[in-house]
Amino acid sequence: MAVPSTEDLNRYLDEAVAAAQEAGNLMLECFARNDAQASVEEKSSPADLVTKYDRQVEELVLKRLRTAAPDFRVLAEETANKEELTDAPTWIVDPIDGTTNFIHRQAECCVLIGLAVKKKAVLGVCFIPKLDELYTAVQGRGAYCNGRRVVSSGCKDLTTALVNLHLPSYSRGPKVVDRILGISRDLLAHPIRAMRCGGSAGVDMVHVARGRLDAYFEVGIYPWDVCAGQVIVEEAGGVCCDTLGGDFDLASRRVLVAASPELASQLAVHLRNHSYSSVEAEDYNGDVPEKASKKPRM
Amino acid sequence: MAVPSTEDLNRYLDEAVAAAQEAGNLMLECFARNDAQASVEEKSSPADLVTKYDRQVEELVLKRLRTAAPDFRVLAEETANKEELTDAPTWIVDPIDGTTNFIHRQAECCVLIGLAVKKKAVLGVCFIPKLDELYTAVQGRGAYCNGRRVVSSGCKDLTTALVNLHLPSYSRGPKVVDRILGISRDLLAHPIRAMRCGGSAGVDMVHVARGRLDAYFEVGIYPWDVCAGQVIVEEAGGVCCDTLGGDFDLASRRVLVAASPELASQLAVHLRNHSYSSVEAEDYNGDVPEKASKKPRM
Repeated sequence: MAVPSTEDLNRYLDEAVAAAQEAGNLMLECFARNDAQASVEEKSSPADLVTKYDRQVEELVLKRLRTAAPDFRVLAEETANKEELTDAPTWIVDPIDGTTNFIHRQAECCVLIGLAVKKKAVLGVCFIPKLDELYTAVQGRGAYCNGRRVVSSGCKDLTTALVNLHLPSYSRGPKVVDRILGISRDLLAHPIRAMRCGGSAGVDMVHVARGRLDAYFEVGIYPWDVCAGQVIVEEAGGVCCDTLGGDFDLASRRVLVAASPELASQLAVHLRNHSYSSVEAEDYNGDVPEKASKKPRM
Repeated sequence: MAVPSTEDLNRYLDEAVAAAQEAGNLMLECFARNDAQASVEEKSSPADLVTKYDRQVEELVLKRLRTAAPDFRVLAEETANKEELTDAPTWIVDPIDGTTNFIHRQAECCVLIGLAVKKKAVLGVCFIPKLDELYTAVQGRGAYCNGRRVVSSGCKDLTTALVNLHLPSYSRGPKVVDRILGISRDLLAHPIRAMRCGGSAGVDMVHVARGRLDAYFEVGIYPWDVCAGQVIVEEAGGVCCDTLGGDFDLASRRVLVAASPELASQLAVHLRNHSYSSVEAEDYNGDVPEKASKKPRM
C-alpha cells in the first residue's frame, strides 16, 4: 500500500480529530454522571482496570477511522485480537489513556489516535477533554494545541528540568520496582528541579511538547500509549528516543521523551547506570502473567 | 480576642474568596504571558523557587485580608518576618502553592487562604485558576467547589486507593529520600491501585476532598501548605491527621489526608513501619541550612 499523500493525511487528520472530539464528549458525559467507578473491571490485576467507557470510546473511534480508511490496519488497546504492526498504514489507538485517572475523575486522561506507516508514526492526535486541549501533529508540519503552534521548553539542563516518571501500577515485580526507585534516588540526588508522576503517557508526552514538562520516561509502554505523542513531541521540537538514547522503536516498549537532545542524553546516562534500558517487556509481562495473551504479536 | 461569629466568618469567607479570585486572575495573566520562568529566583536551593508573581499575589491577598480584619495576625509563605502562630485569629496564606508547577505552566497550582483560631483551621479557600475551581469551606458548614457541595470518595481500602505522595524537591538529604522511597516500595508492594506525585499540597488536598484522590501524605510541609486544605477536606467527609494517625497539628510539619478514617489508619501503619512519622522538621531544615531562618517561630 502506498504512503498516504499530503491530501490524504489532511483528511485522516480531520477524521482523527472528529473521532477524538466525539470520544472526549463521551468522557465528559461520564465525568458529569460520575459513574466510571461503577463500571470498573479488573484486567490483569486490581490495578489494571478497564471501564465500559474505554470500550465504548474505542468502538466509536474505530468505527470512524475504519470508514475513513477501510484498508488500514488497526492496533487498539481494548481490542481483543491485536493486529500485528506491519509496514502497512496502521491506526494505533488508546481510547482512554490514563484509565485510572479517568475512573478517579482526574483531568489527566486523554484520547490518543496515531497513524503509523512503515512502523513509523506520521500523524498524532491527543485530546484531553477535561482541559479542553486538542493536540494535533502531522510529520513535518508542526504541532498544535487547539490550532495554535506549540513548542517544547528546549530545556538542556537537568538541574532546571521538571521530570515525569511512571511509578509502576500493574507491573510491580521487585525487579521493576527496584529499578524505578533506584533511578528515582539517583535523579533526586542529582539536582533535577522536581519529579512528578502523572499517570497518563499521552498527557505526559503532550506536556513535554507544550513545555509544561521537560522530560518523561517509561518502560513497559505499548505502541498505543506513545504513537500519537511521538509525532506531537517531535513536531514541537522535542526528542523521542529509546531509554538508551538510541532511535525510538514503537514496538520496543521503552520511551524517553525530552525537550532537547542534550537533556535526552543526560537522562539516558542516568537510565543506563541503572540498567533501566535492559528491563525487557518480559519483566513486565512476567509480573502480570494473566496479561501475556494481551501482548501484541510483533 | 473573641472567636469570630458566624456573621463574621461569612464576611471573612467573602473577602478570602475575592482575594483568591483576584490572585487567580493575576496567575492566569502570567500563564498567558508565559513569563514566570523569566522571573524565577532560587531560595534555599536550585529546586526551591520563587517568582515575582508569588510576591505580587501575596501582597494583594494580604492587603485585602488586612483590610477585612485589621486585628488578625498573618502567617504567609513569602513574608520575610513570619508571625508566630498563637491562639489569636491568624490568616495563613500560601499565595501560589505549587510554585514549580506554576513556573512550568502546569494546571496544578493554587492560591491558599486559611483562617486559624486557637491554632485550629476554621475557614479555608483554595482557588485553582487554570481549572477554574474555587474550593471553600467553613468549619461545620460543608465543603464546596464553585458553590456545589463536594464529598470525599469514602474509600476504605488501600487496594482501590489512588495515593499521592510528595517526591522530595528541595529537601533531599539521604535520610529524607530513603524514607520516602522505602515507603513507596512498601506501598507498591501492597496492592494500592496507583501512586501519583502532583507537586501542590493544596491541590492534592482538595483532590482528596473532591474524590479524585483517596489519600495524600507529606512530611516537611508548613502551615500555609495545609491550613486551607484541612478545613476543605474535613468538611468534605475526609480525614486530616498526623502521619502517626493522631490529631493533626498545624505546626507539626506532618500531614496525612485520607478519604476515610479506615484508609487513614491503614496508611498510618505503613508510615509507622518506615519511621516516617519520626522524620522531624530538623531533617528537612538540615538539608537546606540556608532555609533555617525561614522556619516559622513556633
